[in-house]
Amino acid sequence: MQAIIVAKLTGKNFGKSRIRLMKVVRRGENHDLIELDVSTDIEGDFQEAYVVGDNRNILATDTQKNIIYALAREHDATPIENFALLAARQFLAHPSSVIRKATVSVKALPWGRVFSGEKAFPSSFEGGTAERATATATVSLEAEQIESGVSGWELIKTADSAFTGFIKDSYTTLAETDDRILATTVTATWRYASPPTDADSKRGLIRKALVETFCSHRSSSLQHTLYAMGRAALDVCEGINSIRLSMPNKHCEPVDLSAFGLDNPNVVFAPTSEPFGVIEAFLERD
Amino acid sequence: MQAIIVAKLTGKNFGKSRIRLMKVVRRGENHDLIELDVSTDIEGDFQEAYVVGDNRNILATDTQKNIIYALAREHDATPIENFALLAARQFLAHPSSVIRKATVSVKALPWGRVFSGEKAFPSSFEGGTAERATATATVSLEAEQIESGVSGWELIKTADSAFTGFIKDSYTTLAETDDRILATTVTATWRYASPPTDADSKRGLIRKALVETFCSHRSSSLQHTLYAMGRAALDVCEGINSIRLSMPNKHCEPVDLSAFGLDNPNVVFAPTSEPFGVIEAFLERD
Amino acid sequence: MQAIIVAKLTGKNFGKSRIRLMKVVRRGENHDLIELDVSTDIEGDFQEAYVVGDNRNILATDTQKNIIYALAREHDATPIENFALLAARQFLAHPSSVIRKATVSVKALPWGRVFSGEKAFPSSFEGGTAERATATATVSLEAEQIESGVSGWELIKTADSAFTGFIKDSYTTLAETDDRILATTVTATWRYASPPTDADSKRGLIRKALVETFCSHRSSSLQHTLYAMGRAALDVCEGINSIRLSMPNKHCEPVDLSAFGLDNPNVVFAPTSEPFGVIEAFLERD
Amino acid sequence: MQAIIVAKLTGKNFGKSRIRLMKVVRRGENHDLIELDVSTDIEGDFQEAYVVGDNRNILATDTQKNIIYALAREHDATPIENFALLAARQFLAHPSSVIRKATVSVKALPWGRVFSGEKAFPSSFEGGTAERATATATVSLEAEQIESGVSGWELIKTADSAFTGFIKDSYTTLAETDDRILATTVTATWRYASPPTDADSKRGLIRKALVETFCSHRSSSLQHTLYAMGRAALDVCEGINSIRLSMPNKHCEPVDLSAFGLDNPNVVFAPTSEPFGVIEAFLERD
Repeated sequence: MQAIIVAKLTGKNFGKSRIRLMKVVRRGENHDLIELDVSTDIEGDFQEAYVVGDNRNILATDTQKNIIYALAREHDATPIENFALLAARQFLAHPSSVIRKATVSVKALPWGRVFSGEKAFPSSFEGGTAERATATATVSLEAEQIESGVSGWELIKTADSAFTGFIKDSYTTLAETDDRILATTVTATWRYASPPTDADSKRGLIRKALVETFCSHRSSSLQHTLYAMGRAALDVCEGINSIRLSMPNKHCEPVDLSAFGLDNPNVVFAPTSEPFGVIEAFLERD
Repeated sequence: MQAIIVAKLTGKNFGKSRIRLMKVVRRGENHDLIELDVSTDIEGDFQEAYVVGDNRNILATDTQKNIIYALAREHDATPIENFALLAARQFLAHPSSVIRKATVSVKALPWGRVFSGEKAFPSSFEGGTAERATATATVSLEAEQIESGVSGWELIKTADSAFTGFIKDSYTTLAETDDRILATTVTATWRYASPPTDADSKRGLIRKALVETFCSHRSSSLQHTLYAMGRAALDVCEGINSIRLSMPNKHCEPVDLSAFGLDNPNVVFAPTSEPFGVIEAFLERD
Repeated sequence: MQAIIVAKLTGKNFGKSRIRLMKVVRRGENHDLIELDVSTDIEGDFQEAYVVGDNRNILATDTQKNIIYALAREHDATPIENFALLAARQFLAHPSSVIRKATVSVKALPWGRVFSGEKAFPSSFEGGTAERATATATVSLEAEQIESGVSGWELIKTADSAFTGFIKDSYTTLAETDDRILATTVTATWRYASPPTDADSKRGLIRKALVETFCSHRSSSLQHTLYAMGRAALDVCEGINSIRLSMPNKHCEPVDLSAFGLDNPNVVFAPTSEPFGVIEAFLERD
Repeated sequence: MQAIIVAKLTGKNFGKSRIRLMKVVRRGENHDLIELDVSTDIEGDFQEAYVVGDNRNILATDTQKNIIYALAREHDATPIENFALLAARQFLAHPSSVIRKATVSVKALPWGRVFSGEKAFPSSFEGGTAERATATATVSLEAEQIESGVSGWELIKTADSAFTGFIKDSYTTLAETDDRILATTVTATWRYASPPTDADSKRGLIRKALVETFCSHRSSSLQHTLYAMGRAALDVCEGINSIRLSMPNKHCEPVDLSAFGLDNPNVVFAPTSEPFGVIEAFLERD
């Protein structure tokens, strides 16, 4: 049983996750607050470390973390695409020359300045929604690539959502409906043809295309709406080559109140956490 | 060891938690979306059920859930104080006459209408922040009581926060600071003298007092700011008798960059999830 | 509106939560691994800190944390009852004399030594179940009190569980059943008459009484089984005066397969996360 | 800006996630309890649904869920590899002939029979550890593939773990150590050359190889130990072609007690949740 085999170490990579980083940018009394969650990952000449425990080529994940904090002190932390690219390039250029590929992912937490009535408080901030802006820079000797996206973006539409005409087989119990709640949490990732110079404005355009399509689409299914959203993003931003969308169908069932002598014309629903549909697509520019 | 003892059943209560309820209010094309998380709890003549397994006085938690959904169909689900009170009264008035006390707690999820540029989408909604409006109605034959509050409300101030002059003992390693980040998540609960008729506007006043005090306070400690917030709430709303505040101190440590030849004049911080301080107070009107 | 009021500061307390502590006890090659999650909380002469920002009586939560780590170095960390009491006493005896009451709560994470086949590995450990042993020591000038318990303890019985004879009103849709799955997660807290000298063995007795009662009980309801468990705990351990039990009813619904021409004699169930029942009781020795 | 583009729909797939399934197998008084968390995903001729909203080829995710429950009634739910393969084949063979590829993933929750002292309770079960057995079957017209694994498997070793000799650059602050705590949560996935006939016994062999290697390895780094574990799995089970391992380095820092006049010879540690290292490798049989 204990045969002599040789295992090829085809993949080997390591890094630091959940590097939490807060940066306060002070312009007199007016502060800006940036909070990021950064992950790093490197590939390279690590064969000896894995196979025989020789660490001479290991850039400790603790050191990777230190580099991120130092870069955040010396450089702008936003747009997050630029910061991710800056960091990934720094890893690739490491004097040890052992790193062949570096990936840095950044997620931004959406703190917003506090407004109360007409007052803006210059150095106070309120937590935002569950939506996160995301960016990943992948840098190797051959190529640099930026993927941006959003995650955790909760959207619901209460009109213009139907689901009819699907396959009826011997396991089908779902009723057709021409009026349902469509509830989802959008994860989208778009890939730039080349590192963007104005990632924040492109993000704004794409986000606007996604949300406006979601809201105004006459939906035959979540698949249908998801595709329309992806298509709108490619239409609106020539700088991106592709977009991937993953959107759960978070089911909200109308509650059957007939036993209590009550009708329920799509008024009262029971949202459920599980199970949920997962609908996905990848669209590329032709 | 197996002594003959008689155990008194001093407390006995049961109910349903996490009753998820979504309600769509349709005014022509314009919809409103309300999502609630409701819990019920009843006390009463349940001795026989617990002790000998006789269920004749048991109002099943499934039935309690049905009552909540039916009430949401027939009545307004907001203000949540009113809905909680309505439901608690319904339980107390149950024809079986076995319920002595009923508690209904409601948490509201903050969906907001989608705006994009100048456009408002009449039937599309976006997930809100982690802040939740809360209300609990407790009804017995003797009394009705409403507690309202907020939870999950994330606030940060990047100026006017110091912490100096505290006890220095042989276990003290914390340095004094006259400029730190103060990060917290507010949980507040205020108690009304009598069920309020305009809970939403009172909530608005109290919330405004809390946030404006947090933002403008020259803080000597989180204790200091918390008290000022509670005091401001009592000052602004005569209808409430007391307020309880619980606010974690979510530590954000300045990162030591000196080993890399960099200073860090309160620019780059590492937020930490644990451990965290917990600061609490209960203020009553004198 | 901005009336002159005087607010009484009736409650004021603070401490550190989620102090994570791991201790390795080395007996030659054989190690023991203890992981605790500790919370502290103190009450005392803190009026000036809250009201006017004078911190001279504030024992910083960071210092409280340091005290816990130092005590863990100098003393046994288990039984957790003893460690909690030791720490609470240390707070109360603080040289500043400002602390009137101290509460220390400890939760133990159940690492187990790794066994593989007949081999025991002396310094390797595997994560345990979600069950946690808990203990809280509350110490004031007047009294010392120990509460112990368990939380997160997942139990299921697939036989001897019925639910019949409950109230049928106009909102009742639940069917009676004499054979259902009873699934719960036990939280129990028992209070000692005086600090126990052998908390671990008492815990063992009580835990055994709880689980054996759950398993062997012919259950008419979760209320019925919960009471029997509490009663068994009081019977088996004279050292405790009372026990509180809180047990969710985690519903597992038989799946209706009739549309597919299949019966389902209590074979296939769909567990649900929400809503869930919450059943509670407090039993005192008479 | 609104250019006429044609988007290729390169990827399109959908399914149901978090299908929770509990099965009670009754052998007289002795019951077995199986709890699974199942996900389905299908690819196929769905172009029209996504692009123009024609659902005639859509096998609703609700129907996919029904199929899983029906299969669980008619067939054994374990070994999970067999159940996943059975379900994936059923999807591929769907009479509509629109499905080109089906993926079914199963995660098993580890309920264990309750033992108390020498007593075994035949129909009572206790929640297990956070470790999950996982299996994914992917079936297309061309191929059938089974991947098995574990996730959530928490392991700690308190001896024989060093980390020295790594790169020292201008960002390195980590000290070398020849005695540290190595704490991780193992995620492993191994791929079978062909669907295994005895998945449970192969799982047993591989799991044993993984854990015994972890425990007995003289670790120069987590990379070093991870490789040894993967190598051991390939050595012990000829039926698998490759294994992927992902193991966080969950840092446990010795607490500096020197300010309190105490030493800390690797006795008291503070485990931290974030940041954490992520170490990964993919090993293939040569």
